[in-house]
Amino acid sequence: MKEVLIIMGSASDEVVMNESAEVLAKFGVSYDQTVASAHRNPEKVAEIAKNASKNYKVIIAGAGKAAHLPGVIAGHTILPVIGVPIKTSDLGGVDSLYSIVQMPKGVPVATVAINGATNAGILAVQMLALGNEALQEKLKNYKEELKS
Amino acid sequence: MKEVLIIMGSASDEVVMNESAEVLAKFGVSYDQTVASAHRNPEKVAEIAKNASKNYKVIIAGAGKAAHLPGVIAGHTILPVIGVPIKTSDLGGVDSLYSIVQMPKGVPVATVAINGATNAGILAVQMLALGNEALQEKLKNYKEELKS
Amino acid sequence: MKEVLIIMGSASDEVVMNESAEVLAKFGVSYDQTVASAHRNPEKVAEIAKNASKNYKVIIAGAGKAAHLPGVIAGHTILPVIGVPIKTSDLGGVDSLYSIVQMPKGVPVATVAINGATNAGILAVQMLALGNEALQEKLKNYKEELKS
Amino acid sequence: MKEVLIIMGSASDEVVMNESAEVLAKFGVSYDQTVASAHRNPEKVAEIAKNASKNYKVIIAGAGKAAHLPGVIAGHTILPVIGVPIKTSDLGGVDSLYSIVQMPKGVPVATVAINGATNAGILAVQMLALGNEALQEKLKNYKEELKS
Amino acid sequence: MKEVLIIMGSASDEVVMNESAEVLAKFGVSYDQTVASAHRNPEKVAEIAKNASKNYKVIIAGAGKAAHLPGVIAGHTILPVIGVPIKTSDLGGVDSLYSIVQMPKGVPVATVAINGATNAGILAVQMLALGNEALQEKLKNYKEELKS
Amino acid sequence: MKEVLIIMGSASDEVVMNESAEVLAKFGVSYDQTVASAHRNPEKVAEIAKNASKNYKVIIAGAGKAAHLPGVIAGHTILPVIGVPIKTSDLGGVDSLYSIVQMPKGVPVATVAINGATNAGILAVQMLALGNEALQEKLKNYKEELKS
Amino acid sequence: MKEVLIIMGSASDEVVMNESAEVLAKFGVSYDQTVASAHRNPEKVAEIAKNASKNYKVIIAGAGKAAHLPGVIAGHTILPVIGVPIKTSDLGGVDSLYSIVQMPKGVPVATVAINGATNAGILAVQMLALGNEALQEKLKNYKEELKS
Amino acid sequence: MKEVLIIMGSASDEVVMNESAEVLAKFGVSYDQTVASAHRNPEKVAEIAKNASKNYKVIIAGAGKAAHLPGVIAGHTILPVIGVPIKTSDLGGVDSLYSIVQMPKGVPVATVAINGATNAGILAVQMLALGNEALQEKLKNYKEELKS
Repeated sequence: MKEVLIIMGSASDEVVMNESAEVLAKFGVSYDQTVASAHRNPEKVAEIAKNASKNYKVIIAGAGKAAHLPGVIAGHTILPVIGVPIKTSDLGGVDSLYSIVQMPKGVPVATVAINGATNAGILAVQMLALGNEALQEKLKNYKEELKS
Repeated sequence: MKEVLIIMGSASDEVVMNESAEVLAKFGVSYDQTVASAHRNPEKVAEIAKNASKNYKVIIAGAGKAAHLPGVIAGHTILPVIGVPIKTSDLGGVDSLYSIVQMPKGVPVATVAINGATNAGILAVQMLALGNEALQEKLKNYKEELKS
Repeated sequence: MKEVLIIMGSASDEVVMNESAEVLAKFGVSYDQTVASAHRNPEKVAEIAKNASKNYKVIIAGAGKAAHLPGVIAGHTILPVIGVPIKTSDLGGVDSLYSIVQMPKGVPVATVAINGATNAGILAVQMLALGNEALQEKLKNYKEELKS
Repeated sequence: MKEVLIIMGSASDEVVMNESAEVLAKFGVSYDQTVASAHRNPEKVAEIAKNASKNYKVIIAGAGKAAHLPGVIAGHTILPVIGVPIKTSDLGGVDSLYSIVQMPKGVPVATVAINGATNAGILAVQMLALGNEALQEKLKNYKEELKS
Repeated sequence: MKEVLIIMGSASDEVVMNESAEVLAKFGVSYDQTVASAHRNPEKVAEIAKNASKNYKVIIAGAGKAAHLPGVIAGHTILPVIGVPIKTSDLGGVDSLYSIVQMPKGVPVATVAINGATNAGILAVQMLALGNEALQEKLKNYKEELKS
Repeated sequence: MKEVLIIMGSASDEVVMNESAEVLAKFGVSYDQTVASAHRNPEKVAEIAKNASKNYKVIIAGAGKAAHLPGVIAGHTILPVIGVPIKTSDLGGVDSLYSIVQMPKGVPVATVAINGATNAGILAVQMLALGNEALQEKLKNYKEELKS
Repeated sequence: MKEVLIIMGSASDEVVMNESAEVLAKFGVSYDQTVASAHRNPEKVAEIAKNASKNYKVIIAGAGKAAHLPGVIAGHTILPVIGVPIKTSDLGGVDSLYSIVQMPKGVPVATVAINGATNAGILAVQMLALGNEALQEKLKNYKEELKS
Repeated sequence: MKEVLIIMGSASDEVVMNESAEVLAKFGVSYDQTVASAHRNPEKVAEIAKNASKNYKVIIAGAGKAAHLPGVIAGHTILPVIGVPIKTSDLGGVDSLYSIVQMPKGVPVATVAINGATNAGILAVQMLALGNEALQEKLKNYKEELKS
């Protein structure tokens, strides 16, 4: 069992989503990283999502355009799902943002900025730190680093 | 077996989506109408979508906000899926529109106007008419009616 | 008689619209491809549109800016018309999208994503497959391909 | 022969477009007013547009949503066409505005503000005044009136 | 010590933010609710935010327009901060959304939909459930409820 | 006396606005071209605008960002004013477009597409052709050219 | 000589702009309030703006749609000009905002929120307080009031 | 004591914000320039803001994305705060603009155009000139320069 699953809708999202992995590595948080499209391979995504609570504690999902991946996963799991809207070449990512953040009542996605994969990683750490004093210390140190 | 499935994400979409049903009824096209949320009941939606090609020929799916229903269904079926973006009280429906129309390569949704459920019905009839001369005649008559 | 007509408003749309042709070719669907502007040559467009139902089964129309081509054709024919909003250099294609998708009651255009010509091709195949089991098989195989 | 044709896409546009008529009446400019949808009755619109230069000098065309009417008419005539984007209940009229103003090279539409039918009337008068000193005088008086 | 702090920028946000409180109450999660403006009373907000990690585990912050409250709090604490963009009468809440979600690298805010206070409550419960099996059970039951 | 004045708010607009001049030259319409900012040199602009009706018949004004030039000129003259919104590097020109097209009741600006200087030239020719049969012939020929 | 001039483009802006007057009155700052449209009465506006520095120290200008009034005044005077974008019924005031805030290099307008007339008043007081210790005291008291 | 503080949220804003410094230098106005993030170092920003009125007369604050810096400073000081929204690579700066200009009642930020740092400098000079005849003369000369 790893702590975080980083999942993205397309291999082209990897450049952005690697930033989440870097943050988790920096904080010593274990993770898996995978590519699975909510639209092209919905069964694989459903399978991953349904079993997520056995294997992970937090999910980070990045997707672009009509970006359903974070919401689809959130529909299948009780774990907190962090959504990263990927920038798009035509609408700048406002399509990804609306598709991720405007979730209906009952199924939240914790949305960060367009291409905000670094912050997605930090948010995951903040959630995991709720029951982990060592992570709390690391976050305090990180906040000090930010100041300089 | 019915020809069209009308599905919507929330019971509150019914006022709009009934217009699709009215069009289908007018053209003598059989249909089922149901409510199922891609986010609140993803398994039911997946079940319906996977079996859709046994039971229907065309699907009309209406949803609002982060409107994933049409895209989720399109991910599971080879049937043409028509998406109806429902107007929202804050963003006017541009969130629904982007979430439905901006589908990634490989999985199209045939999107109509915001709250365009009437046109969704007509588009379904146009698709069904490809192999149905009686429907073609009805569509020609409908086009004449529109002129007056 | 060919199955699909691919039409676009300007020769500069060809780079995008060729993707529709590639999809159709891949599925073994016959098509014609032509350039005709709804604004610069309305009579040619009207002529093509009025006769479309004799020559084709589905129309794919791509256009940018105040993108009237798909809607104008839809006004003249009972065939299903698929609209491809072309990305624009100033507004990113939101002008093309609104001009194509926001059709008034009675005359739908099945709109795909900005520059979504590949999906336009697949949607055309899905429509044609309604009465064609061989195409249905190909679509199932295509859906399998997408997963990997 | 009248000087101006006021044409609109839907009877529901009449409340707005009557303001154009009121301005023309105030300036003593003759006009006809008619309803014809570019999408529901394209042949009637083409007919009107092709013969417009025999019957009128300026055209004012109002339409909403995917508002093609002004552009379609401009495609058929060498007369100046003034476009009035009608406010829409979901997108506020930005869809109408983009559909009217973003015309491609070669076919202009002289676009006024959303619901700006009064200004459409004045613009028509300004065009007609180019060869009409009496109208020029009336416009000068109107500009004085505006000041108070 | 309570588990969640619900904080909002203005008393007028209370109608929306009460939905977060209702969710927390339903799940048996303890909370405090307060009003403090990041702009009108920055010192009070800083005071609350700096001490938050002694008193709470998760913060839900709702604000409208140039909605800085969630981000300001996130700047002062290592706790996860959930942001609720409040709908505005002029821009529909897109100003609140951008002000909350587009946070710079290092300081995330977990943003939910415009007026999405119910989902903010659920997201808080999901975070708290990471170390609480009873809450996990309740979330599973809630997910079942959503289906019907 | 020349027929058209082409005026622009900044020397950097010249690349775009030269297209208006090219069209006028092609149609044999005389024109002057000048640079004057409504904000940096309001008195020069007011002077030009007040005397415009003695020197010209139609004005083409291009400007970007908070693009007041066309509207300011329209406030001073009874001549028809054609506005060209210049594309901007941040907002794509939607700022220029709104600043030009959304004129208040009483003072219209005939707005063309973002960077639509060619169409501004054609629109000017259409206006001048109202009392000029030779120009009408040229416009008819131009419309034929467009078709090919 | 009064300290502040409140000017607005239309009598209908008065409901909003009275809030500026109320703030100035509360702070004991003298002001005149007038209506003058940059488009309908440009000479009056130019006259007021050119003489403003003899009569006033700060100008507050409110306008809607293609809102040129603040920018036009700023073009004529070296006084600081505060712009209030008035909410519009179709675009929510984003047209007013862009028309006021996106001023070109050399001629700033100090823009406040859509319908932000209260803040325009406070900003004027802040400017006047630069050389006025009594006003500084009042502003400090006002900041205290805001906290409660 | 210097007259103006130029502060920005990130070192990457310096290219833009240096334009403010150049303007101030040109007018002989003294200034300090510093980098401090409202989110990464809120205490430093609060410290600077609280003491600002002892050290400066006007503050220019530039920030991008969820741009809270100008508003945070305005919350702590009675000095006039000028906000410069920095252009962003995804949303063009409309996120920065809304985050800065849409301030709630009681705490204004004098917002200039996206990347409008030059105008921020001029606006600061205009404020300082209220009690400084030499600066008034320089502003008059600058206005003359602008004309050529």
